[in-house]
Amino acid sequence: MFQSFDVTSTPQFGKARVTALRAALADLNVDGFLVPRADEYQGEYVPASAERLAWLTGFTGSAGIALITRNQAIVFVDGRYVTQLAEQVDGSVFEGGDLVGEPPHVWLERHGAKGFRLGIDPWLHTGAEVRKLEKALQGLGGALIFLDHNPLDKQWENRPAAPLGRVNIQPLDHAGLLARDKLATMATDLSKAGADAVVLTDPSSIAWTFNIRGSDVPHTPHPLARAIVHADGKVALFLDKRKAGIEEEAYLTQLASFEAPSSFEERISALAATGAKIMIDPDHAAFALAERIRKSGGTVIEAIDPARLPRARKNAAELEGSARAHLQDGAAMVEFLAWLDGTTPGEITEIAAAVKLEAFRKSVGERMQNPLKDISFDTISGAGAHAAIMHYRVTTESDLAIADGTMFLIDSGGQYVNGTTDITRTVAIGTVPEEQRRFFTLVLKGMIAISTARFPKGSRGVDLDPLARIALWKAGADFAHGTGHGVGSYLSVHEGPQRISRASMQELLPGMILSNEPGYYRPGAFGIRIENLVHVLEASEIDGGELPMLGFETLTFCPIDRRLIVTPLLTDEELAWMNTYHRLTREKLAPLISDDGVLTWLEEATAELTR
Amino acid sequence: MFQSFDVTSTPQFGKARVTALRAALADLNVDGFLVPRADEYQGEYVPASAERLAWLTGFTGSAGIALITRNQAIVFVDGRYVTQLAEQVDGSVFEGGDLVGEPPHVWLERHGAKGFRLGIDPWLHTGAEVRKLEKALQGLGGALIFLDHNPLDKQWENRPAAPLGRVNIQPLDHAGLLARDKLATMATDLSKAGADAVVLTDPSSIAWTFNIRGSDVPHTPHPLARAIVHADGKVALFLDKRKAGIEEEAYLTQLASFEAPSSFEERISALAATGAKIMIDPDHAAFALAERIRKSGGTVIEAIDPARLPRARKNAAELEGSARAHLQDGAAMVEFLAWLDGTTPGEITEIAAAVKLEAFRKSVGERMQNPLKDISFDTISGAGAHAAIMHYRVTTESDLAIADGTMFLIDSGGQYVNGTTDITRTVAIGTVPEEQRRFFTLVLKGMIAISTARFPKGSRGVDLDPLARIALWKAGADFAHGTGHGVGSYLSVHEGPQRISRASMQELLPGMILSNEPGYYRPGAFGIRIENLVHVLEASEIDGGELPMLGFETLTFCPIDRRLIVTPLLTDEELAWMNTYHRLTREKLAPLISDDGVLTWLEEATAELTR
Repeated sequence: MFQSFDVTSTPQFGKARVTALRAALADLNVDGFLVPRADEYQGEYVPASAERLAWLTGFTGSAGIALITRNQAIVFVDGRYVTQLAEQVDGSVFEGGDLVGEPPHVWLERHGAKGFRLGIDPWLHTGAEVRKLEKALQGLGGALIFLDHNPLDKQWENRPAAPLGRVNIQPLDHAGLLARDKLATMATDLSKAGADAVVLTDPSSIAWTFNIRGSDVPHTPHPLARAIVHADGKVALFLDKRKAGIEEEAYLTQLASFEAPSSFEERISALAATGAKIMIDPDHAAFALAERIRKSGGTVIEAIDPARLPRARKNAAELEGSARAHLQDGAAMVEFLAWLDGTTPGEITEIAAAVKLEAFRKSVGERMQNPLKDISFDTISGAGAHAAIMHYRVTTESDLAIADGTMFLIDSGGQYVNGTTDITRTVAIGTVPEEQRRFFTLVLKGMIAISTARFPKGSRGVDLDPLARIALWKAGADFAHGTGHGVGSYLSVHEGPQRISRASMQELLPGMILSNEPGYYRPGAFGIRIENLVHVLEASEIDGGELPMLGFETLTFCPIDRRLIVTPLLTDEELAWMNTYHRLTREKLAPLISDDGVLTWLEEATAELTR
Repeated sequence: MFQSFDVTSTPQFGKARVTALRAALADLNVDGFLVPRADEYQGEYVPASAERLAWLTGFTGSAGIALITRNQAIVFVDGRYVTQLAEQVDGSVFEGGDLVGEPPHVWLERHGAKGFRLGIDPWLHTGAEVRKLEKALQGLGGALIFLDHNPLDKQWENRPAAPLGRVNIQPLDHAGLLARDKLATMATDLSKAGADAVVLTDPSSIAWTFNIRGSDVPHTPHPLARAIVHADGKVALFLDKRKAGIEEEAYLTQLASFEAPSSFEERISALAATGAKIMIDPDHAAFALAERIRKSGGTVIEAIDPARLPRARKNAAELEGSARAHLQDGAAMVEFLAWLDGTTPGEITEIAAAVKLEAFRKSVGERMQNPLKDISFDTISGAGAHAAIMHYRVTTESDLAIADGTMFLIDSGGQYVNGTTDITRTVAIGTVPEEQRRFFTLVLKGMIAISTARFPKGSRGVDLDPLARIALWKAGADFAHGTGHGVGSYLSVHEGPQRISRASMQELLPGMILSNEPGYYRPGAFGIRIENLVHVLEASEIDGGELPMLGFETLTFCPIDRRLIVTPLLTDEELAWMNTYHRLTREKLAPLISDDGVLTWLEEATAELTR
């Protein structure tokens, strides 16, 4: 199993640890200290050795930050984690904060004491974050203190060692471009930008640039590592050698000087001391890096990580791999859904379903000689009211039987060497009330609107987002998350900069993979999400069309529950899309399925819908 | 007539005037000078006395700016004016610039000589513009020189006098709120914002705040005037007394000390010298004003003009007045369209049609005892390929007969004491090719999508814009203008901050009036635009809805040409909207029409459409 459903929080230590931390802060002459969920790599997943927030507070959610002052201990989380926070931390020690409405810098502006001195570990915060904190503290006549060590680390006994996950070479068949060529392009672009070097600090950028994958953190196969690429073509890779086998070491040595992570800071200082102009991404690099460059005599050039856009724009090999990974993943989903339909309503629990789905992904991977390397995130498996919790993680404590007459939402994905998948289906268990089927259909209309959209070059995520919502808006409803996030190529299932959301000003470019996942959530009652992955492509010549247009091609194939669709609510165009999608699903997946019972289920699940 | 179709440009003087201006610039020791279309009030229309750009170059478009250097004379215009510029200016003296892609500050960055010294008249540029120019000149090691007089004004012989258009009191029935109360609210808000006073520099803000209307410029009934509102409630109005009759003077004297425009600068300096904190809107106030405040010892507080948002959010009286003005205007449009349909295709010219429409607006206004005060902008009246020119202004030179077998686009509006209208209809002259009818229907789908939209509170213009385009996008087409602009209440037909466009981050708020005008333009062939005005309102309880939603209510009632609608392209919902709209149009307008022939036409034009 690539996931656990255990309750892992340890709230009982919070009190003593906060007390000890406060003593350390007093010695350091600071009034407060921030403990973010992020580690120095700023990725979505962190290794056990960097789970500082969970160690201190007990809170294990994927986003959050604690502010410990002399007399308060506030854990800031977003809406999806409010309930979880209350369950996981000691309420006599910690209080909840609003990460979206009043994040720490805003909290400080409003409630911070005059002259407040805030300590931070500058390796755990980006330059962009530091700027906000500095501004808030200036307003208080206070100061931001960059600590030269993390006081929490000092008190953390039995801290797990830093991970040494094995690194693998990503085959050219899947990567599509030689690492050598990617590095050469990067060096040329540096010269054009007037920079002497760039520091790659995002592990996914290391993975993409060097065509390697890692296993240091759960679910995202990138290695925790950094690199310096020089405009003259020289490359230094800071990756623990113990992560590489002989073959990998030989490969990487051809691309870069292979250096110890511990020498990174020293090497940056030495480079900066030559007066070099060094490019870093202020939104993703640790503030300490920029500080070190400046203090050592270098110049910081702030620019987007040069791997970020090329990584988002998948090449032909990556797209082809992704399409194949999605068919395989679709076959596993079909086996799962057919199995689920064969069970007696009320007999299966949420955990049992998630376990079974992972088993199908594994067995299909074995059968197709393309093993499931990992799941791409912890499965969201929730029925009835649990489905209304957008990021519900089922545990042995919350687990319920999936009841007859409810909708069951399952959001999951797999990591395969040729692609990362992410799919949500909401299915009927027994007979579902008409009202719920109506909302399912409205969500489906939004999902079809994105699937069938065409848009002029230059359109941004914000320009597509309303199309996924207008059917719900007309019913007086909406959903409180973006319509889609970027997805990596056997990398992070949440990849930037591409997004479909009201905040996304990033232009959509051919090759980008995005999720298309409108939803609807009625707290305490039911939840719906329908998610396919799509990729952006040049729209084929449209009859009478005159502008260069883009569109989406769907990567995910898996039946959408016909029993939940109220066909009279669909337009002719929507109904036609639905039937074509089901026909393609049947044609593409049937050859991958050997079990006759499952094939029969697939036939029925994709049969033509009529009014 | 409120408009002229004469060719008014005088390109023959350009050479001599530029030569004389260059001599003056040499004396002032500057390398270049900017001549914007804008005057010191930054409005869309300027009085004859401020038509500096036209006087110098011959170009009479509504947007543009000339940069005169020692050896170049560039007139920057946007795409819609490229052709007009070429026709109106002496090509041996002037060259064209790209106001959108390379406005003056960008041109300077790219092509300006090292050390370039640019002179400007600081009363003709906003603070926001000055910042951009300063940045560009810094990059050149040059300087921005604020001239203490406008050298062009010195050489302008026989310059028209500043206008003395009559001011009228806007009756409370139409204004809905007492000026006294508006001023009191403004003073209270100033105190809250920590400001001692605000300077109202936008004539539309003067008109709205004081409940007066003026007649200094064409088509926008605001008086050129300024005011200072103090936090302690004192108000000074800088308006030429000769514009007011006895009654108006008595009225205004109760609200404010009534001061001469010539004393404005002195009064600002005196106020600033007390160390006052003075609020101005950097996007709309002349830079010279901020400079004067700072130099005289005051503090500038930059904030949005306090009349801007309240003016945009019409109150019940304004909305009711607008609805009535639109019915009256719709009756005039129906008389016009009925008349046009009765003519022989090919007999009527574009000018003749525009003249006739204005006459109908005038006669209906007389009949209904609510006279047409002005048209709200020069009528766009174009058939065939002329309709593809988005802001086509027909002149005696361009005028053509509206040919059989073409589409005729007419975009026009009226100013009535109770409201400002703006309507576009595109109608069939004889039999129109299927291809053009198809595009008409796609544009109509976009227009219906906005008309029927519901959206959550907090939605911005950018969130609605794609809905008007998706039908065209799917056909590989688009239109190169925003979907909608704000409209005033017997004020400017182009009012901010509300807009529906890809750039509009302004939240849509109840009471805002906007146009809903998608289009499609095939250069050299045909053009389509369908425009209604709508206002934002709280959506009535939607069945099963749970969020506070907003929607649009349509103000404009006038048939949309049924002969151009390809009904199979409409969804059931769109067809139902179309039939309801036509039924309402018939029911609302029939009582306003006395001529039996016109009534019969209206019956036919609004008859139910079926597949």
